Order: sequence, then structure tokens, then C-alpha cells
Amino acid sequence: MIAQTPLPPYYAVIFTSTLKTASLGYEKMSELMIDLAKKQDGYLGIEHARSAIGITISYWQDLSSIQNWRQNTEHQLAQKKGIKEWYKDYQIRICKVEQAHLFSSQ
Amino acid sequence: MIAQTPLPPYYAVIFTSTLKTASLGYEKMSELMIDLAKKQDGYLGIEHARSAIGITISYWQDLSSIQNWRQNTEHQLAQKKGIKEWYKDYQIRICKVEQAHLFSSQ
Repeated sequence: MIAQTPLPPYYAVIFTSTLKTASLGYEKMSELMIDLAKKQDGYLGIEHARSAIGITISYWQDLSSIQNWRQNTEHQLAQKKGIKEWYKDYQIRICKVEQAHLFSSQ
Repeated sequence: MIAQTPLPPYYAVIFTSTLKTASLGYEKMSELMIDLAKKQDGYLGIEHARSAIGITISYWQDLSSIQNWRQNTEHQLAQKKGIKEWYKDYQIRICKVEQAHLFSSQ
């Protein structure tokens, strides 16, 4: 789903990744981490899609919420497992959302 | 592919969309617009994935490059066609990329 976020400014973490061929357990961990992110202070929303690359964008109230989420113990274990087992490459970009425009046909 | 972007700061346009059931011609137009974006001044890279939602992130040197791209004549025609025919909903977020972290297993 498209995330329903408040008016800017707020923050986005763009996580773009490619996976190794064998990625047993990845989907389950990915779902667990999305569920865990949703429980964090300052969490605003998440968007995810995967084709040749995976893109997960999480939205946050401020930089300190992002910092807390990055240092969450369960999240750090998942990050280590991801580096060791699942990810071929990834890029994390931390951004300040300055403008937003919405369109709905409904 | 994961976009190879320079060191921050630079800008990102996060375009998240859902499509109507019938989306004849959408893929072709989407590819044309990606090819056209690549030719614009200030273009830095693009990332795309689609599952239940589509996410396209284009990266730009500055806000004026984004403004020029939004006002490009062919792009504006595609935007109008998208609103009329293809998109159920979309959200455009314009962001300043402040930090980036790269991981590669290779």
C-alpha cells in the first residue's frame, strides 16, 4: 500500500537491495522487521516492492527515530544476518522529505 | 539496478503508485519516460520495482533539475495520460538525500 504520511517535513529511509540466489528465510525476516518497525516511536509508514531489485522505504518523524530503529537489538541481528546470508548489495539513503503531492482517482 | 549516485547531498523523487486493472500501454510509456529522464540535465540515477505497488525513485543533482524534468513537454503528456488512464493512486515525494551507506558482498 501507498503510505499515508503527514504533511512534510519528515524523513525517509530508502533501502535498495539485490539478493543472493539462495535467500532462504529472507521473506519471513523481512516481514518480521516490517512488523517491528511499525511498533517504533516516530514510525510513519512503509512502502515495499521487489522486481530485479527490492526497494523498501520507511518513513519517520525525525532523524532520532531512525537512529533508534537502526540501533534496535532485533533489527541489528537481522542486519548482521542479512549481510552474512542474503544481501548481494544494498544502498541505504536517509532523506528529508520536503514536498509531497498526492493523486487519487477515487 | 541499484543506482550509483555521488556523495550526498543530492535529491530524490519517490514516486509510489497503484495501477488500474487495465493498464494497456503503461509499461511501454514507463520505459520511454525512464529513457527520457536519463537524458535530462542533473539526472543521477533511477531505481524501480513493482509488486502490489510500484516504486520509482529518480535521483537528481538539485531541485531545479527536478523542476525542469517535471515541466518537460513529453513528460507532461505522459503525466496527463497516466492520470486519465493508468494510475489508481500515486504519491510523489521530493526529498533531500542527506546520508548514504553502501554494502557490497563482491
